[in-house]
Amino acid sequence: MNIAILTFEGFNELDSFIAAGILNRMKPEGWNVQITCPSEQVTSMNGVTVTAQQPLEFANTADVVVFGSGIYTRDIAKDSSILDRLELDPHRQLLAAQCSGTLLLATLGYLNGVPACTDLTTKPWVIDAGVDVLNQPFNAQYNIATAGGCMASQYLATWIIAKLANNTAAASAIHYVAPVGEKEALVAKCMAVVSPFIS
Amino acid sequence: MNIAILTFEGFNELDSFIAAGILNRMKPEGWNVQITCPSEQVTSMNGVTVTAQQPLEFANTADVVVFGSGIYTRDIAKDSSILDRLELDPHRQLLAAQCSGTLLLATLGYLNGVPACTDLTTKPWVIDAGVDVLNQPFNAQYNIATAGGCMASQYLATWIIAKLANNTAAASAIHYVAPVGEKEALVAKCMAVVSPFIS
Repeated sequence: MNIAILTFEGFNELDSFIAAGILNRMKPEGWNVQITCPSEQVTSMNGVTVTAQQPLEFANTADVVVFGSGIYTRDIAKDSSILDRLELDPHRQLLAAQCSGTLLLATLGYLNGVPACTDLTTKPWVIDAGVDVLNQPFNAQYNIATAGGCMASQYLATWIIAKLANNTAAASAIHYVAPVGEKEALVAKCMAVVSPFIS
Repeated sequence: MNIAILTFEGFNELDSFIAAGILNRMKPEGWNVQITCPSEQVTSMNGVTVTAQQPLEFANTADVVVFGSGIYTRDIAKDSSILDRLELDPHRQLLAAQCSGTLLLATLGYLNGVPACTDLTTKPWVIDAGVDVLNQPFNAQYNIATAGGCMASQYLATWIIAKLANNTAAASAIHYVAPVGEKEALVAKCMAVVSPFIS
């Protein structure tokens, strides 16, 4: 199971690393979660430079593509030198987006008729792109999921694990990362949010 | 306000970046949150290489030092070539630790008589170091705070902002990162967890 966490210049650390951290709980089961970038290194919105684990093209053959978020997403949405490198297909891949990553999913045409979640800043741009924005943290339809608000990354990760492995594995991953003393409550919350979207 | 997020080889991404991401919401107020490492680059437990924003010695003059967590913390706790570079003082600094970071706070002698929070894996080692471990996500006493379970990083960040700025700023930072549709609930939760520890 190859999972590309798309991480661009100016990225939001929470939006790439919460999903990556939770999904990496599946590493013992062979899941290969990779920070995937358009250049060898990218620097976050807060000045943290990370080295790409994979080039952008890794996404094209991945089983799951998670679009992270960042402060330059509107520019990236207009940058064909980046977006033209992506050849995705929701029939063979899960496509997930966090916060402003939803704008990229919209720009690439994967949200036609699919209402979406995003953060409050990105919301007007996603609406401009012709997509209905929901006032909720998570939505999924078929193989496409979106989440809004950094900490909603936990729901994206829960959905991906529940969909590609099973509910038990998803619950176990959330249990591990949940606060001590709140583990059962957070597992129940995450499963309640995503279970309506797991067929 | 200088804030050092201590991030070591083998670090847990959630434990450094959730705190850093939330604390960086205070950047417009002049807070300077820096990923602070013992070497020029460190690689996470899942193979993500980040470039240090500051050398370890930045912590010695910082206003807040957050000990991140990772898979090599037990080795670091025995490595005087790293720990001897730290000259901290809870009388002039807030010292906070996330998960296995608590073991480093214990090793450095800052938890004498202070019960602490940590993750379930680190718990026996912290007990071996002579510190009582609590079955709760967050604890603070005077200028020292500990949290257990990756997602409890949100409580560390809330406490730091509430203590050094005010409750309104802490609530605003959590409101921004909270899931859409759950913002008021998460703000209330975070404030409820930390408020008993804010004098």
